[in-house]
Amino acid sequence: MPRNLTRKILEAHLVEGKLIPGEEIGIKIDHTLLQDATGTMAMLEFEALGLEGVKTLLSAQYVDHNLLETDNKNADDHRYLQSACARYGIHFSLPGNGVSHQVHMERFGRPGLTMLGADSHTPGAAGVSMLAIGAGGLDVAMAMAGRLYYFPCPKVLGVKLTGQLPDWVSAKDVILEMLRRYDVKGCVGRIIEYYGPGVKTLSATDRETIGNMGTEVGATTTVFPSDERTREYLVAQGRGDAWEELAADPGADYDEHDEIDLAKVEPLIACPSSPGNIKRLSEVAGTKVEQVIVGSSVNSSFRDLMVTAKIVEGRRHHPQTYFHINPGSRQVLENVAEHGGVMALLMAGARIHQSGCLGCIGMGQAPGTGQVSLRTFPRNFPGRSGTKGDQVYLCSPETAAAAALKGAITDPRDLGQEMEYPRVADPQKYIVDEGSIVFPSKELRQTEVQRGPNIRPLPHFDPLPDSLSAEVVIKVEDNISTDTIMPAGNKVLPLRSNIEAISEFVYYQIAPDFHKECKARGNVVVIGGENYGQGSSREHAALAPRFLGVRAKIVKSFARIHKANLCNFGILPLTFKNPADYQLFEKGKKVEFPDIRRRLEQGDTEIPVKVDGKEVTTLLEVSDRQRQHLLAGGTLNFVKRELGKEKG
Amino acid sequence: MPRNLTRKILEAHLVEGKLIPGEEIGIKIDHTLLQDATGTMAMLEFEALGLEGVKTLLSAQYVDHNLLETDNKNADDHRYLQSACARYGIHFSLPGNGVSHQVHMERFGRPGLTMLGADSHTPGAAGVSMLAIGAGGLDVAMAMAGRLYYFPCPKVLGVKLTGQLPDWVSAKDVILEMLRRYDVKGCVGRIIEYYGPGVKTLSATDRETIGNMGTEVGATTTVFPSDERTREYLVAQGRGDAWEELAADPGADYDEHDEIDLAKVEPLIACPSSPGNIKRLSEVAGTKVEQVIVGSSVNSSFRDLMVTAKIVEGRRHHPQTYFHINPGSRQVLENVAEHGGVMALLMAGARIHQSGCLGCIGMGQAPGTGQVSLRTFPRNFPGRSGTKGDQVYLCSPETAAAAALKGAITDPRDLGQEMEYPRVADPQKYIVDEGSIVFPSKELRQTEVQRGPNIRPLPHFDPLPDSLSAEVVIKVEDNISTDTIMPAGNKVLPLRSNIEAISEFVYYQIAPDFHKECKARGNVVVIGGENYGQGSSREHAALAPRFLGVRAKIVKSFARIHKANLCNFGILPLTFKNPADYQLFEKGKKVEFPDIRRRLEQGDTEIPVKVDGKEVTTLLEVSDRQRQHLLAGGTLNFVKRELGKEKG
Repeated sequence: MPRNLTRKILEAHLVEGKLIPGEEIGIKIDHTLLQDATGTMAMLEFEALGLEGVKTLLSAQYVDHNLLETDNKNADDHRYLQSACARYGIHFSLPGNGVSHQVHMERFGRPGLTMLGADSHTPGAAGVSMLAIGAGGLDVAMAMAGRLYYFPCPKVLGVKLTGQLPDWVSAKDVILEMLRRYDVKGCVGRIIEYYGPGVKTLSATDRETIGNMGTEVGATTTVFPSDERTREYLVAQGRGDAWEELAADPGADYDEHDEIDLAKVEPLIACPSSPGNIKRLSEVAGTKVEQVIVGSSVNSSFRDLMVTAKIVEGRRHHPQTYFHINPGSRQVLENVAEHGGVMALLMAGARIHQSGCLGCIGMGQAPGTGQVSLRTFPRNFPGRSGTKGDQVYLCSPETAAAAALKGAITDPRDLGQEMEYPRVADPQKYIVDEGSIVFPSKELRQTEVQRGPNIRPLPHFDPLPDSLSAEVVIKVEDNISTDTIMPAGNKVLPLRSNIEAISEFVYYQIAPDFHKECKARGNVVVIGGENYGQGSSREHAALAPRFLGVRAKIVKSFARIHKANLCNFGILPLTFKNPADYQLFEKGKKVEFPDIRRRLEQGDTEIPVKVDGKEVTTLLEVSDRQRQHLLAGGTLNFVKRELGKEKG
Repeated sequence: MPRNLTRKILEAHLVEGKLIPGEEIGIKIDHTLLQDATGTMAMLEFEALGLEGVKTLLSAQYVDHNLLETDNKNADDHRYLQSACARYGIHFSLPGNGVSHQVHMERFGRPGLTMLGADSHTPGAAGVSMLAIGAGGLDVAMAMAGRLYYFPCPKVLGVKLTGQLPDWVSAKDVILEMLRRYDVKGCVGRIIEYYGPGVKTLSATDRETIGNMGTEVGATTTVFPSDERTREYLVAQGRGDAWEELAADPGADYDEHDEIDLAKVEPLIACPSSPGNIKRLSEVAGTKVEQVIVGSSVNSSFRDLMVTAKIVEGRRHHPQTYFHINPGSRQVLENVAEHGGVMALLMAGARIHQSGCLGCIGMGQAPGTGQVSLRTFPRNFPGRSGTKGDQVYLCSPETAAAAALKGAITDPRDLGQEMEYPRVADPQKYIVDEGSIVFPSKELRQTEVQRGPNIRPLPHFDPLPDSLSAEVVIKVEDNISTDTIMPAGNKVLPLRSNIEAISEFVYYQIAPDFHKECKARGNVVVIGGENYGQGSSREHAALAPRFLGVRAKIVKSFARIHKANLCNFGILPLTFKNPADYQLFEKGKKVEFPDIRRRLEQGDTEIPVKVDGKEVTTLLEVSDRQRQHLLAGGTLNFVKRELGKEKG
């Protein structure tokens, strides 16, 4: 039976389970990717396993998030990561060398391999036909240890591409078109596989843009065929030997179908404050723009910066529109410099920054109050820029450049009246620069791991006791996001390697004394409503509460990733069998979980708990694997024991 | 009688007083310079005068400090400044266009003119033979209004330069040699005038380096002759018409004398944590270095970045030594790019940042705990980098580049065994780029000033009442610095345009509730020891306490600039006639100032105050001008009244 490409790659890596949508599968992971916001904790988790080194084909650590360096903490984290990488055989990309997605594709990406990355935009590696998935840090740490990655087998959505993009329209508009069709949740539980005659009109970095932002439509990942364009890219990177042709079998089918005629794609823009709030340029043209940023996680490749440079060459940005360039990597910037783009951008007034994520994750570049900011970034969630009530739009480099010149949102096709569209070809041979990557070596394996004062060892968590007694410490409403549970931003992110310090910010926005109240109580319980833990995948929203003594969360329903994170860190994720029981639980009430250990051991789904002498039925709906992890007090404890058995 | 150059320039600008060292003089100011950390408040102060526009030859506003942009505040400030500049006829240099000192010299510097800048390194304009002085924001606002600048007439220290610098030794080493001789206070009350045959061996930007850091030896400013080298620089900048030859008359004398044989200057380094803690390279060679930064306030010129680029060209920085470049201006970076330096630096692994002050004022680039950082900056005060207990060394670009390559402090002359010294000549014709400066225009004068929520109007202060009653709110020891009174850093600096918000940080480190205690008490008094208010010139250390109700400070002795700032904002700067009376004043005691207004009006120096029913004599040692300002409730009130009289 003819297979689509997604199925081929999954089958080649499948170790546990069956490729039936919705069933849990365990796949082998070839590459892992860490960045420094999630990576410090993931590295501590990996270290907690006590292994000599990583067991992947290749593991890489990037430093691209925490580049503000306002005090010792960022630099301490980076030294920790550099030394740990040396010790455990991990490739270390120095601070300022670039965004993980861009650099990994340039130097390491390889068609047909799997990758797990502790960054939700890991699927950008679709640009070189990897099957790359974003996950929590602990999942990545487990993959570094050679463990399988478990996830529900997704459906495959085949999207047939035909035609060719018109002038002034580029890959960003293709994924904005997907967002127009599917909004931010339309592809949850799906892998998007692009195929058809239009694919060859898109370069590897175009595909990276589309894969990276596949995350925004909720997709597990995105897959592209590996073809002549992929080969061109790898050859230009001096890595032609990494190429392999990959495609769906002729006549292969998909679980779901869609089609895009590239020739009909228009310039689109995501309006505040959701990547799914898509409009045509004509609907918002003329809006005054005070900031334009090209680069960061997507649209930071050679083509993207060069097309921007060519558009602004010989001109100057509007004096009211501040104009930033965030290169995807040092190598990108070197190639742009070689082709005259750096000079063109500087002479147009651009502020060229060191390579990194920067404003894309709220590390600087915050717009002023009420100011409109156009960015080529993947996300514009409210306040993510660092400014409350921000007005952030997402668009292509072409649209961004047009706004920088005109001072207002402008359909880039209107520039066609003033100039020819500068269609930028990728270099046949890139300047290759991997000098800012420290490669693993036998000598480096002797390195002593450096732990600055901000690097705290991972706390130890007890296994699930026979019975449990805990007090309700907070009761929240529906749709509480992980941003509410564990805030991010430039104040809290630098604490991600220090659970004790970061735990003081749990529920900080709605209950500033939460951490004190937990510490005064011992074991505690959180009560929540529907869709509890939606939003970002950050594992600190489970880990830090667990550190504070949260042993169970009883809610009306959970968001998927947060529930998985709770299992990973030994917090019981329980739901009310009868949602009306929500009202029985108030702050300060004692909750009893009699015989809880035995109930998990014997596989019970119904878990009785007592409050005010009354018995209430809650549900524990997890896989057998997760049940074992909960019993052990978390995945780390479980896996450590397993590894001990393997050795013994 | 033959005159030295300093005296010539001062005489040409003298309006009040006599050029007798120590006597107060009032001089006309031709140019003013603001940056965005001090400039928002200075602009608010200027606005408070109610004038239609500035009355200088040229006023310029730079945005080089607050570039971290972690929330709306920086961007709000920058928009405020841009709109106020447009309205009042001020040149506005856009964020990221460069460090004030570098850009002003490139585009506006003119031999023989005076400049007052709200930045202590303003004397860098010595590079093009300006007489340029750093001062508090209010003094600069007054100069913008066409008022004189008053200061005690300094002595002139003539330093004769002979010989020529050897290979691997550069201008930074000359000023480090001055610091070796004079330490950080040896030139207080002096203007340093360089002369002699060695002067012509130094380029305009070399002289800028020496003038900029004259501040570190405590000098009021530095003066260089305007000669053929000055002309070369101005011609290369396309401003040959700005040139004028200037020199001391033959046979002119100086108040004090010194001499440096440039041929004998060695590479020097300022060790932690004072610019005056000078050692020879050999004394510290071999110390492991984890961070190197070239650029920022000094050593960010074309020559400085190019010599760095040439040294590292074709090589790579040590993987344990992170390597940063902070260009002085966009124009510098463009010229470095044109000469291949950008590519050389990138390929050597440098992180090239947008042009600005950045780590030089603790805006990012903080080293990790215990890490040694070599910087070409002018200052290494403890903790200024953002990291507690920091180990910051100051050195030349040559010494910095050597450390970046070797991973340890290295005498740059040792590189001579591996390569020829790359003696860099300035371009005969720079790429000139003033496109990121918004020039004043008639149309722009119609601009409405934009005030974001972080821009608060200047508080109004009452005139001195007939009698005063106040409570002691804090009593401190000797040597309290303005950093203790009003902290800086990346948390507090963005609040400089919001006195109410920043006032919550007054005495924050030693008395976190100071602001609350003041507000609960009404009028309050601060009691201090010797050398009260030493350190930075920041006027917020007077303004914010005044906002909190501080009406008098009674101390054993004052640091000079802080005392002037107290007068500017209407706080009585009193000293104990009998220092032993210090012990009579404790927190919570009521202090009476009977008949205080009349005593100031009649010119009393002895001011009796009552505490616990006991009368104590304090001294008010200020000029008549300052006495008038104190009576008016501060300089702004006084000048506003004067301007009213002039109009009426």
